[in-house]
Amino acid sequence: MIIHFAGLGSMGSGMATACLRAGHEVHGTDPSAERLAALVAAGGHALTEGSPAADIAVSVVLNADQSRAAIFGAGGLASRLAPGGVILGCATVAPDFAREMEAQAQAMGLHYLDAPISGGAGKAATGQLTVMASGTPDAFTTARPALDAMAETVFELGDSAGPASAMKAVNQLLAGVHIAAMAEALTFGMTQGISPEKFHQVIPRCAGTSWMLENRAPHIVAGDYTPHSQVNIWPKDLGIVLDIARDARFSAPITAAALQQYLAAAGMGLGREDDAAVAKVYARNAGLTLPGEAG
Amino acid sequence: MIIHFAGLGSMGSGMATACLRAGHEVHGTDPSAERLAALVAAGGHALTEGSPAADIAVSVVLNADQSRAAIFGAGGLASRLAPGGVILGCATVAPDFAREMEAQAQAMGLHYLDAPISGGAGKAATGQLTVMASGTPDAFTTARPALDAMAETVFELGDSAGPASAMKAVNQLLAGVHIAAMAEALTFGMTQGISPEKFHQVIPRCAGTSWMLENRAPHIVAGDYTPHSQVNIWPKDLGIVLDIARDARFSAPITAAALQQYLAAAGMGLGREDDAAVAKVYARNAGLTLPGEAG
Repeated sequence: MIIHFAGLGSMGSGMATACLRAGHEVHGTDPSAERLAALVAAGGHALTEGSPAADIAVSVVLNADQSRAAIFGAGGLASRLAPGGVILGCATVAPDFAREMEAQAQAMGLHYLDAPISGGAGKAATGQLTVMASGTPDAFTTARPALDAMAETVFELGDSAGPASAMKAVNQLLAGVHIAAMAEALTFGMTQGISPEKFHQVIPRCAGTSWMLENRAPHIVAGDYTPHSQVNIWPKDLGIVLDIARDARFSAPITAAALQQYLAAAGMGLGREDDAAVAKVYARNAGLTLPGEAG
Repeated sequence: MIIHFAGLGSMGSGMATACLRAGHEVHGTDPSAERLAALVAAGGHALTEGSPAADIAVSVVLNADQSRAAIFGAGGLASRLAPGGVILGCATVAPDFAREMEAQAQAMGLHYLDAPISGGAGKAATGQLTVMASGTPDAFTTARPALDAMAETVFELGDSAGPASAMKAVNQLLAGVHIAAMAEALTFGMTQGISPEKFHQVIPRCAGTSWMLENRAPHIVAGDYTPHSQVNIWPKDLGIVLDIARDARFSAPITAAALQQYLAAAGMGLGREDDAAVAKVYARNAGLTLPGEAG
């Protein structure tokens, strides 16, 4: 299969590599020349006007605006797709936006799979992502070779765009709240003499644990904020959640409280640090010194 | 060993039974004649003035006030303990209160183990609790036979009272937030057409999962609010967390938001239902119908 990628960031580069490993011909585009070179070095190609038409196109950019431009902008993925091809929309977006993309694709005789992803850069690189997917049976069938290459788990959530993006929003609500709650609990414990190390030794074996706690607390213990997933993700993703919630007149006070902590972290200049750096908001407020910080 | 219990509720009755199974002689007290009868039927005794002095006393009541009365009130556990015996304080209390109990016990020549518990009624009944414990080496040594009978895991968190209660507060912060966040996410999903069943099928396999989500979401899916752990626990336990936080001038906005949802649930008359009933606050606000409710 010929697969086009728009977006070769931490997720897209791993997904493209997984498709190469599965024997597909991959052409990719990204604003960064460095990322493009990495794709070429891995056996792929830069997506140009001379590239062959794709069977499958994967949009794995940051948000709705970038998705619209990458898919339907001048020279975008839709314009380079073979008739009957499928577009996978992998960004976290509102369900209504996913439905709009699907309608636009269908009007051009193309398939669209609402296909937000979960699992992080590590799972992307090994072709073991979780994909929350919804779309027509034809969209699923056409997308299958790419899904097989990239994903360990594909949740089939409905026969049109929308439900997959809704489930992704639900997951992001929880993931974002759980990281901030971990930071709140870890620093609260510090005020009572519980070290981050002790916190991380005990809580993962208790009822208070979460997937995100077990994944992110070690970053704080190590004082290592190398961005596996940036603070900046959360004002965006919890913002999407709260936009959807507002439209539905749904009151989400815990999500709203968590968002404020990420905004404070971004306001402190930590937007590009690992999202575990939300702990620094609590630490600064309470006069605590986290591991790796000057006392 | 002779072990006295104050409090034979869902946790205490299981712990007393576990001690009986381990071959200890158990004498217990509880305001409920029914619970006392159950202990006697299981091979234990009602704790009376004629009961033999205890080697170990376990206080497993609701809160600090009840703990003080059960341990140091007239005819309380401390007055019936053999010299050099140990008191296990198992209620969720503030670290300062645990330190006060320890000092009072030591002034009487007794040992005190700060020993809050985690794991629920099921683990209590099978002798597989998690105990967060801190106290002097002598307190640990003296308490060991009871810990061996009741607990699968004992975290030794320090050589005086306080750290164990602090760690319990950290765990309760997370557990309380995670249940409410699960309810918020599940009902948010319902506004987007995601059924509670689908939520429970997908999210436990994603990064948004938590121990509490996996434990409590099935109650909502089944529409079964039989109280394994009551809504009323959370205004108490998150209240303790926020009391400690206020004393430490620690800002805990996510905990505070979660507490409001439990207070609303209690205000709706749901205090004695399972804590998963916090979802009913969200459902009522958003005009949603949960499984098992009349449409």
